[in-house]
Amino acid sequence: MKDNLVKNAAGRRVPTRINGEEVIPFKGINKHRPEGVKYAPPIPVCYDFPKDGNKVVESLKVALQKAGLKDGMTISTHHHLRDGDFVANMVFDVAHELGVKDLRWFPSASFPCNTHLIPYLEEGTINRIEGSMNGPLGKFTSEGKMNGVAVLRSHGGRVQAIQDGEVKIDIAVMAAPSSDFFGNANGLYGKSACGVLGYTEMDVQYADKVIVVTDNLVKFPCTPMQIIGNYVDYVVEVDQIGNPEKIVSGTTQITRSPDRLKVAEYTARFCETAGIIYDGCIMQSGAGSISLAIGVFFHEIMKKNGWKARVSYGGSTKYSVAMLEDGTYENILEGQLFDTAAIQSLKTNPNHHSYSVFNGYNFHSKGNLTTMIDVVTLGATEVDINFNGNVVTHSDGLLLHGIGGWQNCLHAKNTILAVPLFRDRIPVIVDEVTTLCGPGEMIDVVVTERGIAINPRRIDLIEKVKNTDLPIKTIQELKEEADRICGKPQKPQFTDKIVAAIKWIDGTVIDIVRQVKK
Amino acid sequence: MKDNLVKNAAGRRVPTRINGEEVIPFKGINKHRPEGVKYAPPIPVCYDFPKDGNKVVESLKVALQKAGLKDGMTISTHHHLRDGDFVANMVFDVAHELGVKDLRWFPSASFPCNTHLIPYLEEGTINRIEGSMNGPLGKFTSEGKMNGVAVLRSHGGRVQAIQDGEVKIDIAVMAAPSSDFFGNANGLYGKSACGVLGYTEMDVQYADKVIVVTDNLVKFPCTPMQIIGNYVDYVVEVDQIGNPEKIVSGTTQITRSPDRLKVAEYTARFCETAGIIYDGCIMQSGAGSISLAIGVFFHEIMKKNGWKARVSYGGSTKYSVAMLEDGTYENILEGQLFDTAAIQSLKTNPNHHSYSVFNGYNFHSKGNLTTMIDVVTLGATEVDINFNGNVVTHSDGLLLHGIGGWQNCLHAKNTILAVPLFRDRIPVIVDEVTTLCGPGEMIDVVVTERGIAINPRRIDLIEKVKNTDLPIKTIQELKEEADRICGKPQKPQFTDKIVAAIKWIDGTVIDIVRQVKK
Repeated sequence: MKDNLVKNAAGRRVPTRINGEEVIPFKGINKHRPEGVKYAPPIPVCYDFPKDGNKVVESLKVALQKAGLKDGMTISTHHHLRDGDFVANMVFDVAHELGVKDLRWFPSASFPCNTHLIPYLEEGTINRIEGSMNGPLGKFTSEGKMNGVAVLRSHGGRVQAIQDGEVKIDIAVMAAPSSDFFGNANGLYGKSACGVLGYTEMDVQYADKVIVVTDNLVKFPCTPMQIIGNYVDYVVEVDQIGNPEKIVSGTTQITRSPDRLKVAEYTARFCETAGIIYDGCIMQSGAGSISLAIGVFFHEIMKKNGWKARVSYGGSTKYSVAMLEDGTYENILEGQLFDTAAIQSLKTNPNHHSYSVFNGYNFHSKGNLTTMIDVVTLGATEVDINFNGNVVTHSDGLLLHGIGGWQNCLHAKNTILAVPLFRDRIPVIVDEVTTLCGPGEMIDVVVTERGIAINPRRIDLIEKVKNTDLPIKTIQELKEEADRICGKPQKPQFTDKIVAAIKWIDGTVIDIVRQVKK
Repeated sequence: MKDNLVKNAAGRRVPTRINGEEVIPFKGINKHRPEGVKYAPPIPVCYDFPKDGNKVVESLKVALQKAGLKDGMTISTHHHLRDGDFVANMVFDVAHELGVKDLRWFPSASFPCNTHLIPYLEEGTINRIEGSMNGPLGKFTSEGKMNGVAVLRSHGGRVQAIQDGEVKIDIAVMAAPSSDFFGNANGLYGKSACGVLGYTEMDVQYADKVIVVTDNLVKFPCTPMQIIGNYVDYVVEVDQIGNPEKIVSGTTQITRSPDRLKVAEYTARFCETAGIIYDGCIMQSGAGSISLAIGVFFHEIMKKNGWKARVSYGGSTKYSVAMLEDGTYENILEGQLFDTAAIQSLKTNPNHHSYSVFNGYNFHSKGNLTTMIDVVTLGATEVDINFNGNVVTHSDGLLLHGIGGWQNCLHAKNTILAVPLFRDRIPVIVDEVTTLCGPGEMIDVVVTERGIAINPRRIDLIEKVKNTDLPIKTIQELKEEADRICGKPQKPQFTDKIVAAIKWIDGTVIDIVRQVKK
């Protein structure tokens, strides 16, 4: 691509056109004001749909053909089946079989299971991926092998892009653990149960054509209606939408690493000491190995003090369910369920509520949950001495992770990056992040196993923890300590080719990723 | 108004402009194809809203001022508090106080409680009502006293009009029995509980500004979120949003009239004999006095045969709740709750589901429930010898009723008008309906206490009930019988002035109502 680069408000050089379309460089936090109106999909009419409500067609191929699949279209899929998903692969198997080219794949995230699609990226069935990438597809992109430029958005940014018409979805394909013939669907029941389908909400409302793919066709009405059939064009029944063992994944393991447990313990103690967890607070709970450990420490602190959190915003697991059940959490607002205990809880506990990405994260909304959250604890691949954060590339330059809800969560009242000081002898704290995903002004605290650095902007927090036994250091001190232990790592080498753009939550371009030199 | 009248596909002379805007004359059933895209409201942005989520402002006046209330705007309200609603009156009290003029009031329905607004219609605060009218406001309109022309739509037609941008709502004001400070709200809890808020769904999504008015401000998060706070601009707390005694109204009384019980009995026997109720069927249940009696007879028939209805689409009452509880109904899809037993059931019975007007009735949708319903039984003010139905005007010409879901329900597989042959010695069956609300081709059977008339188009039904003891007659026979008993009634006299337009479910104009001569 011809890249007419300009320096954006974060000091990063970014193009003004990506994949032939104009884009807006990042202007600063809360500086870009959206103009105009939301995207408006075509008006459908009931007499084009079966009077008996039965929208089942014989195969995904037929559904895609009826939906008018053709070259250059945008196809969306979702990652609620995580690394167990079969449906995205099926979609592009059909596209390949039909000889359709240059598709834009717009997943809510991609996983190693989607490595299957690399040949389609190579031969041009798929032009590019716009969505969070985890693993081999990211590596493929980093190596400069994708035809188009990848665009990475946060979960909330994806919702914003659909709502605002920045990405027009031609065909949305929904994997549904349960559906009726009308397309009412949910993730709670069936052999491929995953819990909630909140990543699909915007696609269902705004896509031109909507296809539900299920391996559990139930009698009408399928309830609760997490997907509303009135938005659905076709329903397809298949043998299996995913691999159940990988749908409810093995990520819900608390870290056993003593260093990472120390990170978790410091994080929890910091929050208690600084008063940023308290009776009635709103917390976010994650399913990463350090986050789970932080949850356990938080649980102890809350119990000891007799505190209850008003809301936990999940990512739920058996650990958060236990906290709901013993009253430590008064409510869970649920974005994604990671294990069967969490699914069971959502089905049966009246204080466990579905809560979509739109509700939690959409920045082009009349407020959202993120600014109401007292504390979020997040990971990062890198954080630099200006507190800038990176979650998509490693220090070797390879694009291996998606943004997920990370950028969105930075808007919490207190944002903590809870990270090891180094990984495989590569420092996590660096002079300058390889890729900028979150500006330093949004990150309040960096907790490592060897000390805690508070952003100098947060004078209030510095004040609250001074004269305590918490190991408070400057971020420079932490960086120097990492360098002393690991040695100064080699900087990755890049070509000029831009392989990916990173969007901020408002749709502007905060950074780009370049091809890694071999 | 200058009325350039044309004859529409139903043979009714209607204008091509109403209130200065172009309208489309009715083209026939399933003949009008919508063009273009749905309405697109402005894109909001989170930084314009309080970071702590607290959108409470001190009064409705302040909320309306902040929302930019000004001359000529369209203000929507809803009738889920029925004849107990205080909120619509409060809105126009403020508008009057502020000297705002020429508002279009767009309620989902109006009730006698809104008689309070007549002075505002007289002095021009309100230009016109676009919404179903029940009682005094309809009479006021019929007498030619309203400045603008009233527009009556079905519940589904109202949803269609909002979705398609036919009616652009400037400010939607929602009465909410429970709300949190963010605007998440429901109708289930609080002293003014009404059950569901499904009439608000489209207004919330499409209105420019959204105000929630509650008398029960609860801790965040208010769940279930029948109104999603992310769409809400302001929250107002008031002492009382309505009169609880009239919110859960007295309409759930089974008729005691022997004639009307006979109508109900014939209807139920007809449905059983013709095989249009059966094990696994989908039914609609109403709360009118005859409908309730039909429900009781259906209950007996279902029990006797060991049948279960897969779905009842309510309008629920203690009678339908009893059927859900004993398994006669497997599910209730809920549009509106009429008594406390029904509210309690929705809170606690996992087979009792909220189901909005959008889901049930929107004709500009990818299918809806109406065509899947096996049988609906409806009332009518008049039905004529061509099976055309009227629900808005009486034979004296006065506009006294709203359309409600009546036009929408006509799309069921079998539509039965269950009506007395005459009311107050005025025949219900007439040569030609005063106002056309539903074309005869949509109405299959007319059941009266003196006989059952089947639409000649339904040869299948005629065949199924021949040689039974059901009192099958022609519609002409029924009409003649009515005339014999009542005498030929005087026709109402009208002036040339058009006072109201009746929309069909696709937004076209099916008929008009003229001013009644004194």
